[in-house]
Amino acid sequence: MHKKPKVLETKEVARSRLFCVEELHLEFSNGAKRVYERLKAGGSGAVMVVAINDKDEVLLIREYAAGVHDYELALPKGLVESDEPVLEAANRELMEETGYGARELTLLKVISLAPGYLSHRMHVILARDLYEQKLEGDEPEPIEVVPYPLAKLSTLVQQEDFTEARSIAALYMANEYLRQ
Amino acid sequence: MHKKPKVLETKEVARSRLFCVEELHLEFSNGAKRVYERLKAGGSGAVMVVAINDKDEVLLIREYAAGVHDYELALPKGLVESDEPVLEAANRELMEETGYGARELTLLKVISLAPGYLSHRMHVILARDLYEQKLEGDEPEPIEVVPYPLAKLSTLVQQEDFTEARSIAALYMANEYLRQ
Repeated sequence: MHKKPKVLETKEVARSRLFCVEELHLEFSNGAKRVYERLKAGGSGAVMVVAINDKDEVLLIREYAAGVHDYELALPKGLVESDEPVLEAANRELMEETGYGARELTLLKVISLAPGYLSHRMHVILARDLYEQKLEGDEPEPIEVVPYPLAKLSTLVQQEDFTEARSIAALYMANEYLRQ
Repeated sequence: MHKKPKVLETKEVARSRLFCVEELHLEFSNGAKRVYERLKAGGSGAVMVVAINDKDEVLLIREYAAGVHDYELALPKGLVESDEPVLEAANRELMEETGYGARELTLLKVISLAPGYLSHRMHVILARDLYEQKLEGDEPEPIEVVPYPLAKLSTLVQQEDFTEARSIAALYMANEYLRQ
């Protein structure tokens, strides 16, 4: 198939508290040269949790999103801490953001966000057999938990405050997995 | 509902050729103060195209993705040029990346990527009634076009070289729209 382009040079060109921009000098297998920029994700990856309660509702959260300066409905998510197993990270984030833990955790898929310029990868995890368990997070204000019937997924996707591609993808994948 | 946090100050803290990082000093309605960082998207937004041919196949492309330094399968996409109507941008990107244009273009949804720290928005457009029409793009090497049966979406989602959350979300939404 395709031979990956050769990386002639990498260079950090900008850095802030959270972000690091890297310049990639590439030579493609046909000889074409290009300079690309990408954001490097730090840390140990991220998790996104599709938690289903005993009423077949998925637990959504409504939270302030700085990128679009508005409140958005989405799935619970967060960063994996160093040396933390991925499923444990999913359960911790679920407890912090929704007040529930899960006895059954299943990895559905590892997704990318915008692989052209982001190195970020996110583990999508299905959480079932829930129990009440609140862990304190570091949120500036209480997160609103919104249980939503999974059977109404197509209505949810049409809502204007539910736009996140990762959450849409994760919910459709979980829905398909549960139907099989 | 929620009152948006007050923006006390915004400050550019890093900039490269492609990216601009902005620091946001916020005061939430409960008085809590936080400093967030976000990436500002430049320009006029982006488009992603679900193009369906007369065999009910979706046109995927396989292209080098610098963020993950690998070849990835995904939907055709690109940036909207200034003053360019969104549907025209979708058709132009489709011609550049797949060699087909579409007589019927339908906006399905405007999605976000990671609204917590990205301001980026992407228009998901369904393209039907295709005709052959190649436009030259600025790609370093020819893009491989991969027609894929829409009926096998659940198999596609399990492939390791198909990971992009935006493409997964767009395909499920298009599939649902076409079935209704």
